Amino acid sequence: MELKTLSDLEIITTSNSKINEVDFENLTFGTVFTDHMLVCDFENGKWEKPVIKPYAPFLIDPSAKVFHYGQAIFEGMKAFKDEQDDVWLFRPDENFHRFNKSATRMAMPEVPEDVFMGGLHKLLEIEKEWVKKGKGNTLYIRPFMIATGHGVIAAPSQSYRFMIILSPARAYYSGEVKVVIAEHFSRAANGGIGAAKAAGNYSAQFYPTKLANDQGYQQIIWTDDATHTKLEEAGTMNVFFRINDTIYTAPTSERILDGVTRKSVIELAKKENINVEVRSVLVEELIAAAKDGSLKEIFGAGTAAVINPIVGFGYKEEYFELPKIENSMALEIKEKLTNIQYKLAEDTFGWTVKI
Amino acid sequence: MELKTLSDLEIITTSNSKINEVDFENLTFGTVFTDHMLVCDFENGKWEKPVIKPYAPFLIDPSAKVFHYGQAIFEGMKAFKDEQDDVWLFRPDENFHRFNKSATRMAMPEVPEDVFMGGLHKLLEIEKEWVKKGKGNTLYIRPFMIATGHGVIAAPSQSYRFMIILSPARAYYSGEVKVVIAEHFSRAANGGIGAAKAAGNYSAQFYPTKLANDQGYQQIIWTDDATHTKLEEAGTMNVFFRINDTIYTAPTSERILDGVTRKSVIELAKKENINVEVRSVLVEELIAAAKDGSLKEIFGAGTAAVINPIVGFGYKEEYFELPKIENSMALEIKEKLTNIQYKLAEDTFGWTVKI
Ligand SMILES: Cc1ncc(COP(=O)(O)O)c(C=O)c1O
Ligand SMILES: Cc1ncc(COP(=O)(O)O)c(C=O)c1O
Repeated sequence: MELKTLSDLEIITTSNSKINEVDFENLTFGTVFTDHMLVCDFENGKWEKPVIKPYAPFLIDPSAKVFHYGQAIFEGMKAFKDEQDDVWLFRPDENFHRFNKSATRMAMPEVPEDVFMGGLHKLLEIEKEWVKKGKGNTLYIRPFMIATGHGVIAAPSQSYRFMIILSPARAYYSGEVKVVIAEHFSRAANGGIGAAKAAGNYSAQFYPTKLANDQGYQQIIWTDDATHTKLEEAGTMNVFFRINDTIYTAPTSERILDGVTRKSVIELAKKENINVEVRSVLVEELIAAAKDGSLKEIFGAGTAAVINPIVGFGYKEEYFELPKIENSMALEIKEKLTNIQYKLAEDTFGWTVKI
Repeated sequence: MELKTLSDLEIITTSNSKINEVDFENLTFGTVFTDHMLVCDFENGKWEKPVIKPYAPFLIDPSAKVFHYGQAIFEGMKAFKDEQDDVWLFRPDENFHRFNKSATRMAMPEVPEDVFMGGLHKLLEIEKEWVKKGKGNTLYIRPFMIATGHGVIAAPSQSYRFMIILSPARAYYSGEVKVVIAEHFSRAANGGIGAAKAAGNYSAQFYPTKLANDQGYQQIIWTDDATHTKLEEAGTMNVFFRINDTIYTAPTSERILDGVTRKSVIELAKKENINVEVRSVLVEELIAAAKDGSLKEIFGAGTAAVINPIVGFGYKEEYFELPKIENSMALEIKEKLTNIQYKLAEDTFGWTVKI
């Protein structure tokens, strides 16, 4: 793809790369960052010149609105290296558009395409050594925007900072994942910000997730907050339920993030002639299906883990183990999807974008 | 009051006070800060030594969890100076306990009383010149805590920073306040974090509030997100409705902040033999009362504005003007409350605490 035009980008490179200190075989997700970051400030109603510079802490006022009112959004995407050493993105336009949708919901300015996309392309060119070849290796990309304006009054900031930081990562594998279905806590309100990748949505889940962890569950499947009867999504994944040979996933709504992986799974499943239905699955349906044996699989879908098969779920003190099956649709879909991402299979969808 | 013991507090004062540059007659709420701030870091499972030092920006990593997951909480309190030049706090224990309740809900460590209270007392001693005499003058106090741990994975931080910053303020007066009743958007979910002073709750309201502003309303009265039939609270105020000679306010819940002003209004009203009922008021009740003339007053109650009388409200394209009345309970309560705060009347409740 053509690099989006970027009128004016300043680049300050470091001569001191950390890359040789990094053990790429033993990475903890999201903890190691590359040598450079992109920074672009919004002041006086307009975006200033973006800068790529050495990754480093920055100065911020104690009264910055991000600290007090949580005016902050982010995205999560990945870069992959193919066998020819080319670096690829997966449906980056989806992330760009979702980022600006989140910005609008959080009363923040939209980030221009040349800053987000052009800046990202340039940053990845500079950091391409950090993307390692071989399935399972990725460079996780974290664009984010924070409110930097000063003042402890609950009103939108006048100043913002947009940044992109990059973190090399191995495929996110979290062992055997057991989930618990939310009975009391919830992640999003009707008319709230659940559909935005707003910072506050995530910390809100930490405490309930800790309680779930204490009971032996790694994640929570959230239900609608009004009735706790509809299955919605997990912490950072949309969720699919396979009952007999159909996979079901909740429709996106104001409460549910419109995941890129989710929509790719749906398109891929259709192409592979897997029955897929987008509709709310009720908790009672799930329990009934678990009891009569028609529930075959549950899996999460999200950028970090791609597809995360779930081995069992808890609900009201009861634990339901999922059957061990031979022809897992989750694994089949994961294989197809990652083959496209790593350019090991033809991308008939046009999802991959070359740097 | 005795200063709470504070084992170990480092104090670094500035010789360069900004106080003479400040126009105390023309302050914009929350924009001017005093010379010093309190900082206390939580690392490796424990709170380090608190430090009072010159107010200044600080360095923070781009991957700090506060930026990505909104793990941040705050409090809002005020200091008042009486005619004898003594400085007083109003029910500070309430804020301290609520702060730690918020911390628990957001999976953050509780702040020890000697750091929060002891640190605040010491800071106020140093900054007492910033508290001006005379009703209407206050020093707004902003304790807050942010997640400083590095890493872009959605899990609680291991490091935190607790800070207190101070901002001189005049009584918050925002002109004639009209409110609109939320029909679609909402601020809190059942099982969510509405009862915590968590940063993310506030930015979530910015966009709907902007839409309300565009329609000529300054604030939104939030309703329950499931049915939008119950009146709950406003952006940073609890809300009271006076129907005939009774004032009503919603019970606190998981969705509603347990306001210090709200509970003080309730206690004060009881003492003054004003009928007060804590129960949900329905939107349809309010409309009916507005139509038959039994709705006399609506007012907000919160630390910043103390009591904020509302002149009218909108609902579904209709605007309801409140009557101009002689014996406003809102103003009577405001007078009594501020007299206690400024030590102009006897504090029979034991609410005021001397620095
Ligand atoms: C709440 C939530 N749901 C689902 C997802 C999955 O979205 P995506 O597939 O675009 O990564 C995410 C993001 O990672 C998320 O934060
Ligand atoms: C959401 C919300 N409701 C109500 C209030 C009023 O609480 P208090 O009287 O303790 O200031 C606040 C805080 O200021 C608030 O943030």
